[in-house]
Amino acid sequence: MNKQLQKLVWAVLLTGGAFVAQSQTAVVEDFKPSTVNQPGRQYPMVNSEGRVRVQIKAPGAAKVQLDISAVKYDLTKDTAGVWTGESAPQDEGFHYYQLWVDGAAVPDPGSLYFYGASRWGSGIEIPAKDQDFYANKNVPHGQVIEKIYYSKENDAMRRCFIYTPPGYNKDTQKRYPVLYLQHGGGEDETGWSRQGHANLIMDNLIAEGKAVPFIIVMDNGNWRMPQRPANGERPAQWPPEGWADGFKNTLLKDIIPMVDAEYRTIADQQHRAMAGLSMGGMQTRVITLAHPDVFSYVGMFSGGSISVEDVEKAPGFKEKIKLVFISYGSRELENRRQGFGGDPKENTEKLKAAGMNTHFYVSPQTAHEWQSWRRGLHEFAPLLFKE
Amino acid sequence: MNKQLQKLVWAVLLTGGAFVAQSQTAVVEDFKPSTVNQPGRQYPMVNSEGRVRVQIKAPGAAKVQLDISAVKYDLTKDTAGVWTGESAPQDEGFHYYQLWVDGAAVPDPGSLYFYGASRWGSGIEIPAKDQDFYANKNVPHGQVIEKIYYSKENDAMRRCFIYTPPGYNKDTQKRYPVLYLQHGGGEDETGWSRQGHANLIMDNLIAEGKAVPFIIVMDNGNWRMPQRPANGERPAQWPPEGWADGFKNTLLKDIIPMVDAEYRTIADQQHRAMAGLSMGGMQTRVITLAHPDVFSYVGMFSGGSISVEDVEKAPGFKEKIKLVFISYGSRELENRRQGFGGDPKENTEKLKAAGMNTHFYVSPQTAHEWQSWRRGLHEFAPLLFKE
Repeated sequence: MNKQLQKLVWAVLLTGGAFVAQSQTAVVEDFKPSTVNQPGRQYPMVNSEGRVRVQIKAPGAAKVQLDISAVKYDLTKDTAGVWTGESAPQDEGFHYYQLWVDGAAVPDPGSLYFYGASRWGSGIEIPAKDQDFYANKNVPHGQVIEKIYYSKENDAMRRCFIYTPPGYNKDTQKRYPVLYLQHGGGEDETGWSRQGHANLIMDNLIAEGKAVPFIIVMDNGNWRMPQRPANGERPAQWPPEGWADGFKNTLLKDIIPMVDAEYRTIADQQHRAMAGLSMGGMQTRVITLAHPDVFSYVGMFSGGSISVEDVEKAPGFKEKIKLVFISYGSRELENRRQGFGGDPKENTEKLKAAGMNTHFYVSPQTAHEWQSWRRGLHEFAPLLFKE
Repeated sequence: MNKQLQKLVWAVLLTGGAFVAQSQTAVVEDFKPSTVNQPGRQYPMVNSEGRVRVQIKAPGAAKVQLDISAVKYDLTKDTAGVWTGESAPQDEGFHYYQLWVDGAAVPDPGSLYFYGASRWGSGIEIPAKDQDFYANKNVPHGQVIEKIYYSKENDAMRRCFIYTPPGYNKDTQKRYPVLYLQHGGGEDETGWSRQGHANLIMDNLIAEGKAVPFIIVMDNGNWRMPQRPANGERPAQWPPEGWADGFKNTLLKDIIPMVDAEYRTIADQQHRAMAGLSMGGMQTRVITLAHPDVFSYVGMFSGGSISVEDVEKAPGFKEKIKLVFISYGSRELENRRQGFGGDPKENTEKLKAAGMNTHFYVSPQTAHEWQSWRRGLHEFAPLLFKE
């Protein structure tokens, strides 16, 4: 081998080696503070690939990790005791995450906190191509009301959040339809406005003339779920009959009467909708199948579907319900995470063929997460209460 | 010494010794979960002495501490890697705190989170003898409204919280007076309703017929404060002239007009009050001294006082202002933490002697903390808008 060739071979080998190393570890250095950081905090950050970079001072720690989307990433420590590191690229939208400091699972002190996975903990926002639909713009804004009320069913004070649309305070004679909108398992009544941005989604849709103004009631649907059999077998029917009765009774006997008494609603079946995500979708399914006399629009986001057989067993549902809306994140369908009751797309197509007004929506490249549900609401809301 | 006497001496010595040891280390074992824990969490706990006990799993950690009221307490680790420990007795009411895990300052994963000390972090509630006045009871409740609005002064979307009293939604013709109520330094617009319980304090006062119903507006008063001189000397006048102008302009030009347009206020000087805690009290002082044409009631909680000399330099203040209310926690006065402008009690007495309607209140055995401010509002509110 002559000297020239030798040099070339070395160059290729060196460059090739560098390429391999780079494709495994290269990170685009355009990180910016997350939009849901605490005031004035630089970290956590997000880059254009959707990677999350966190930083925390822990001079005495031996091991610190970032835990996001069910993967733990080791951070590295500098000489000042500051740990830094980043995740693989994440899907667009909102994700819960946490830090591990020497075996302690803790919230990141840099982020705002959100209720999910049965805890108040850190959240991060990966900028999405369509984030404009839930942006906080200079358009007329409604209000999100924290309402405390007494529940006879529970003999307890409860709390819900109520969105009233722009204009609600101006014309005090006007009355509005109502959507009852439920969170998922491990979440609570704060989720739809705090990380779901239901209020901003509605403000923007109304400003664009794409949805009629309506009230949204977001209550706490958590209820003691029955335990699965200890042997781990999946029962023939799961969840069992009656699992949603606790919240159903609170909704029908306490929440709806309180809302109709306190707010300017149009208090009839034609102007009442129910929707929910995940567990809230499953609750919507059983409650609306049993009470088509109470609701006329049904929305289920990542929470199962309604089959022709379900409808045949539910007197009045086919005649009275004006819309059955089913949505999922595309990654949920890819992974066949489709809830109970069979294939949601097939169920919904058959229901349409049987004569019901249905709508099936798939959120592109999102999983069982808030970006799917924000998009679900954004698709669902324009279909409501248009006489 | 005979045997009897010898026994007695030993008994006294042993008992006395035991008393000393007990008074240093004995902890009353009647701990209960804090009332501001995350749902279902056992820790943190509080006992009848007001001690705070925390617990966190951190099997890999070498040192874990509880940091509350500016003191750090070492926790101890059991064989399962769970760290537990408690603080000295704390004053009644609400306190911010945090954990240190191997040098990382983090929120306690067991507590709810509150904005104070310029961060969202852990808080704990030490049951108070008078806690009934801010308890969530089965009485008619008002609402706390999250309102987004555009501010011309800042060319930005801003957020405030607005309390409307019970009955606001029922009689849509009735109009109400308004209190503008400000948080302290390092806090934000969430503080007065979240840890201050301003809404519950008002709901209870109104239910008892002790206060007339009025609207409360809680906005974000944070503003870039001027830097102190680098040499550490205290300037003759601090804060300097004009330091509160940023928030003042937003309040007068954006917030008040928005509130008067959107809510059913009585939009005149006689039906408008301003109050605040700490920095918010200082803002109340400079804004109301400059604008007695806008406000008629003035409240300052742990935020300085108003002297006869101040009033002499403020045209119209003496004639137009119906009440100057000054309050402090007793421990603040003991420690001479009295804000700017001299002794608050003496100032307030002299102002009364000069012919103004003043009220001076001291919260027993509390410091520069929320229990002082809850009590301050509870004393102040009944004095407002009684024609």
